[in-house]
Amino acid sequence: MPDLANTDKPLRIGLAGLGTVGGGLVELLEKNATLIRRRTGRNIELVCVLVRNLNKPRSVELPDGCLVTANPADLVDNPDIDVVVELMGGIDAARSLIEGALRNGKHVVTANKALLAEEGIDLLKLAKEKNRILRYEAAVAGAVPIIEALRVPLAGQRLLSVQGILNGTSNYILSEMSTSGLDFDTALKQAQELGYAEADPTLDIDGQDAAHKLTLLIRLAFGVNYPYTVLPVQGIRGMDARDIAMAREFGYRIKLLAEVKRVNLDEGDDGPIRLAAGVYPVLVHHTYLLARVGGVYNAVRVESESAGSLFFHGRGAGSLPTASVVLGDLLAVARDARPNNTGFADENIPRASIVPPDECLTKYYVRVMVPDTPGVLRDLAGCMAREGISMEQVIQRSNDGGHIVPLVFMTHEASSLAMKTALQHAMDTGLLHKPAVCYRVL
Amino acid sequence: MPDLANTDKPLRIGLAGLGTVGGGLVELLEKNATLIRRRTGRNIELVCVLVRNLNKPRSVELPDGCLVTANPADLVDNPDIDVVVELMGGIDAARSLIEGALRNGKHVVTANKALLAEEGIDLLKLAKEKNRILRYEAAVAGAVPIIEALRVPLAGQRLLSVQGILNGTSNYILSEMSTSGLDFDTALKQAQELGYAEADPTLDIDGQDAAHKLTLLIRLAFGVNYPYTVLPVQGIRGMDARDIAMAREFGYRIKLLAEVKRVNLDEGDDGPIRLAAGVYPVLVHHTYLLARVGGVYNAVRVESESAGSLFFHGRGAGSLPTASVVLGDLLAVARDARPNNTGFADENIPRASIVPPDECLTKYYVRVMVPDTPGVLRDLAGCMAREGISMEQVIQRSNDGGHIVPLVFMTHEASSLAMKTALQHAMDTGLLHKPAVCYRVL
Repeated sequence: MPDLANTDKPLRIGLAGLGTVGGGLVELLEKNATLIRRRTGRNIELVCVLVRNLNKPRSVELPDGCLVTANPADLVDNPDIDVVVELMGGIDAARSLIEGALRNGKHVVTANKALLAEEGIDLLKLAKEKNRILRYEAAVAGAVPIIEALRVPLAGQRLLSVQGILNGTSNYILSEMSTSGLDFDTALKQAQELGYAEADPTLDIDGQDAAHKLTLLIRLAFGVNYPYTVLPVQGIRGMDARDIAMAREFGYRIKLLAEVKRVNLDEGDDGPIRLAAGVYPVLVHHTYLLARVGGVYNAVRVESESAGSLFFHGRGAGSLPTASVVLGDLLAVARDARPNNTGFADENIPRASIVPPDECLTKYYVRVMVPDTPGVLRDLAGCMAREGISMEQVIQRSNDGGHIVPLVFMTHEASSLAMKTALQHAMDTGLLHKPAVCYRVL
Repeated sequence: MPDLANTDKPLRIGLAGLGTVGGGLVELLEKNATLIRRRTGRNIELVCVLVRNLNKPRSVELPDGCLVTANPADLVDNPDIDVVVELMGGIDAARSLIEGALRNGKHVVTANKALLAEEGIDLLKLAKEKNRILRYEAAVAGAVPIIEALRVPLAGQRLLSVQGILNGTSNYILSEMSTSGLDFDTALKQAQELGYAEADPTLDIDGQDAAHKLTLLIRLAFGVNYPYTVLPVQGIRGMDARDIAMAREFGYRIKLLAEVKRVNLDEGDDGPIRLAAGVYPVLVHHTYLLARVGGVYNAVRVESESAGSLFFHGRGAGSLPTASVVLGDLLAVARDARPNNTGFADENIPRASIVPPDECLTKYYVRVMVPDTPGVLRDLAGCMAREGISMEQVIQRSNDGGHIVPLVFMTHEASSLAMKTALQHAMDTGLLHKPAVCYRVL
């Protein structure tokens, strides 16, 4: 195995995918070449680029001698390549490319959160087995270096929680709804026009993208596997502008939050690590730094037993921001920085001990549509009290003469199950005109 | 040289200094032992502790078999020690300890910003020569992992600027003055009573501590040496509560900021890296994240060409927060993570090309005490205009009947020299009752 750090030979890379991020990387390799040499003592050379369609016109200029191919074997089996950079996305082709590269003794840098959430544990094991570096800083929170932070400087911290605004598209939509008063569909359309949302925005606005990223953060923070398939996930699709306005009146902003909390920190670390986690819209008080995260920015808040709270904030997406993070990974490979790929010594990551989502405690914001008649608030408070839920603040408002009015309240802490039961009961007894809108409060 | 990463032997440490942070580290080594094993596959063993006074009573309990000594040779020459952790502070004894440890093939972890600002380059060279790890995450910004961030994930970024609130004591005093309306002396006394300020607070409130830290950040961010002895430094001693209140009226908070800006980014990286830097109180608009940094918190904002702005926020000091960062460094040593100690391939760090402080451009906040007579504002504006400085906003206020009133204004961008000249001229012509108070505006 070559000693990467003590060489001045170029680090030779094969790049899979020449889209927004791949194109940005090619640009940065050229533009930042002097810096790269100063940082590592070496050049980084782009040897080969894998694309899906050889005939598609490209705006990016490749260096002389760089091979363009549609055949993955030209990367995987190429003895002139030290590192494969996977920026093609998707699952199957990306997995087989990464596996092949690791098996052939190449290091890998990827930004593929979906793949890492799904198959990451196997890939990390394979990398360990082959003693190869597998880096993926760009997979979570864009330019915010949260993966390196959790893996290295925060590795000695016993962590209480990690909370992130991890999906720039959702945050852009919520920010626009909040500051410009747009409705959901208009904000989504605007995001699509600006290139912040895909034509099919499902993964973003339904919370799956944030769930993939949360699964990666949970592994790095706690060394356990909480499969994203069992994470409770609620997205922002169809968010009502009224709730965003109401939340503002209470002093809150609504954010799509991915969070994990350790509930048994006082039990020590010899037994299971017990976690409550999920992705959902949350009301965040305007005095919190998380509430100040606007537009396509991402942020992560980490709460540690010894160091208190840490907050990281930066661009969540975009060609050059993401490409520059990939470049950071490449520099680390060039310098042969080898902390454990997982951040833990044993790559056999056990499954998390999971607090059933129904049992998770939180404060709630609830908006119901009710008839404008006396006694409604009393009856609704009765439904809540039956489940042990007490109200903290109530806004009742007559609308302009209609019979059905919104009633908004915030509760003290309650379990998800108690809230569901209380609202179901209110619905069953005919108190609610339609199902309640209900969000957590941070 | 032993392969640190591929061993399950304990990492044996010698600790110099058993004060607040040293005591916190001993506590964490015990409390986080399981996590340490999970992260590294090894134990960390405290073999020997160096103290100044063997007879001083200690509240911290040392592990069985740990030697307590007052003789540095028991650490430096001890073949049973892999890493020396220097938490004793000061310059001479700390330098000779660290040098001795590196010469004897030991890795070093330190939190000593004063030493690193003064002698860091030589120590980093020595570490390189001996192929040893020298880590110092706790030296800057407390729990905020900005050193690792600049050295690894951000290493590929061409940086525009780094701005930090790096001194918790000053930030606590300014925060208390701003939120509780305290005057400077009362806020300082309160900080001392709470243990946030030393009996002799000079290094903190006069800006030298922040200057030490800025010198380290400049090296990591740009790979050049800007000696702290030539940094322009202005502290917060004697800050007038009136200015904090006035700044609030304009929508600003006053913060002690350490900042460096690259002024020739567009010239590429082959020539000199030209920097404008300094430590000074600055008015920060309340909508900026830096304005939201309260109490003893620290924060760093990094602006990169490709990734835009990044913001990091966390506790700036304290026993366990700082100790937990030292522990993070120890874990990195235990896993043999070896990026370059400096973040650059060549440890021969050249001197920065420095923009003379007088030429640095910024907006200014100015408060002058002037006679309450007609024409004063006109004459003052004349002094400014002579130097090409234009005023952006003015607040003039009659006080309760006195003849001398404060006049406050903010300017458009001007050089430091132009501002000094204009104010000197105003003073010389008898316009000002006493010297102006003048702060930069971010």
